[in-house]
Amino acid sequence: MILGALEAGGTKMVCAVGDNQGNITDKVVIPTKTPEETMNSIIDYFQTKKIEGLGVGSFGPIDLNPKSETYGHILKSPKLAWNQYDIVGVLERALHIPVAIDTDVNSSVLGEVTYGCAKDLDPVVYITVGTGIGIGIYVNGHLLNGMLHPEGGHILITRHKDDVYHGKCPFHDNCFEGLASGPAIEERWNQKAEELAQKEEVWQLEAYYIAQAIVQYILILSPRKIILGGGVMHVSKLLPMIRSKVIKLLGGYLDTKELARIDKYIIPESLAGDQGILGCLELIRRKLSE
Amino acid sequence: MILGALEAGGTKMVCAVGDNQGNITDKVVIPTKTPEETMNSIIDYFQTKKIEGLGVGSFGPIDLNPKSETYGHILKSPKLAWNQYDIVGVLERALHIPVAIDTDVNSSVLGEVTYGCAKDLDPVVYITVGTGIGIGIYVNGHLLNGMLHPEGGHILITRHKDDVYHGKCPFHDNCFEGLASGPAIEERWNQKAEELAQKEEVWQLEAYYIAQAIVQYILILSPRKIILGGGVMHVSKLLPMIRSKVIKLLGGYLDTKELARIDKYIIPESLAGDQGILGCLELIRRKLSE
Ligand SMILES: Nc1ncnc2c1ncn2[C@@H]1O[C@H](COP(=O)(O)OP(=O)(O)O)[C@@H](O)[C@H]1O
Ligand SMILES: Nc1ncnc2c1ncn2[C@@H]1O[C@H](COP(=O)(O)OP(=O)(O)O)[C@@H](O)[C@H]1O
Ligand SMILES: [Zn+2]
Ligand SMILES: [Zn+2]
Repeated sequence: MILGALEAGGTKMVCAVGDNQGNITDKVVIPTKTPEETMNSIIDYFQTKKIEGLGVGSFGPIDLNPKSETYGHILKSPKLAWNQYDIVGVLERALHIPVAIDTDVNSSVLGEVTYGCAKDLDPVVYITVGTGIGIGIYVNGHLLNGMLHPEGGHILITRHKDDVYHGKCPFHDNCFEGLASGPAIEERWNQKAEELAQKEEVWQLEAYYIAQAIVQYILILSPRKIILGGGVMHVSKLLPMIRSKVIKLLGGYLDTKELARIDKYIIPESLAGDQGILGCLELIRRKLSE
Repeated sequence: MILGALEAGGTKMVCAVGDNQGNITDKVVIPTKTPEETMNSIIDYFQTKKIEGLGVGSFGPIDLNPKSETYGHILKSPKLAWNQYDIVGVLERALHIPVAIDTDVNSSVLGEVTYGCAKDLDPVVYITVGTGIGIGIYVNGHLLNGMLHPEGGHILITRHKDDVYHGKCPFHDNCFEGLASGPAIEERWNQKAEELAQKEEVWQLEAYYIAQAIVQYILILSPRKIILGGGVMHVSKLLPMIRSKVIKLLGGYLDTKELARIDKYIIPESLAGDQGILGCLELIRRKLSE
């Protein structure tokens, strides 16, 4: 079965072709410009590929309620050209195939649960720490969606007493994304995150914020695996720091075999950047087999 | 179909008989003493009731992993006499019927989803603010369990700058339960929570902590309904305060129809104290119909 996958991001669109067993046979990257330009290139790409369905993992917020009139639309977006854009409708009408959609991070967690380091585990949380911070959640056999989709990048965080940086989020004084995204790191330290690798205090603070968020996810969702991805996680010393701060913040309250082996519990993404694409393939595979 | 329900609490055990449609026909309360005394009374009660199965909603932590050797046991508990107690095994062997178990708060959310104010909604969060603080979560058609069950009473909270109280939790400096449970209120203000109803600042602070926790649950779980129960919620002015602080803390970030009608979104329990018992009946009904 030939299937299409579209990872729709704010800076780039990854289009791929694969099958219902996670084999990716082709992949191209298209820069994200206006919806007209970008969507025409995407449609051109898929039109010749004989795909039976298309899975989309998109930046949000997206309306994912099947009963809603604006199902499959991008909602109020800071990317103004995409505001209210009916991405599912446009793709369905142009390609005449079923289209499944979820958030980029939900697609990533689905990829890891189906083909990666969280295979057959449930619940699982995927966290991306990049330009933004987002989380995807797989629980009770499905991705988590509800009133909206998870917005765990904006949970409230206790600011470190020595951190005087005001935060990057226009909505919240002290949310996770506002204090710990790549752009927040850059603005706080006046230097690109990529160039700060040697500065210990940068990553101690970053790990403190990421650990706080993970503690909240653990206590609320009780995941069996926590997966970290996104550009900021390229800093290799960050993950061990996060793990030890999670243990410290939990204060011995939870006594589980997963926490006893935290190096196997809080782990990096395992699909070499293809977790989103693989998740999109699985999204549409599931829709077609319903 | 005649079914049994047991709400197992630290101070009392509520035993009830009902059916698979939520009709409760009998109910007794037994004080919680040692497991031997208490369990004998419980078994005596159910033995004559001709029940086909028993649903249990218990204080935690409980091992809810069906594959585990200690499935259905109470885990490391501050209630020492109940430490490692095989509550499911004892009931099954004495009554010779199937027993289903989950946490007290998961049972409560299941009661509300099946028979109460959250009927047919998903996801749903139930929060009890009493001697302890706990949360139950219903998502994707089932209760949420994973590495353990939700422990959302212990999420980290940002302390109010004027609050110098050290907190009641032995594990965490600033967790929700440690700062906002009934005993925490009593210790902070040197007076029983019941006697503080007239003191505005008590409830402003309490609402601030509860609202912070709710914001985290909203951003992570995207629930379609949030239900509050427990003794502390008897203070009627608390709920409106919580709602307005949730809106303020969210900072306009989420634009949903649920938040536009927050008085219908964050609501008190709707089953007059029977949500746990009704949830236990549904727990065992589901198990028997599997
Ligand atoms: N090696 C690195 N070390 C630290 N930060 C990095 C590194 N690589 C990328 N970043 C940061 O990650 C962010 C980009 O995240 P990424 O996940 O690559 O993209 P996006 O979130 O836009 O999809 C930028 O803020 C960048 O500064
Ligand atoms: N009317 C009230 N006003 C304020 N606090 C109350 C009230 N009733 C009970 N509480 C507090 O709630 C806690 C007991 O919670 P409850 O839910 O009744 O029991 P439990 O949590 O033990 O099952 C106590 O700390 C008590 O002080
Ligand atoms: Zn924010
Ligand atoms: Zn605690």
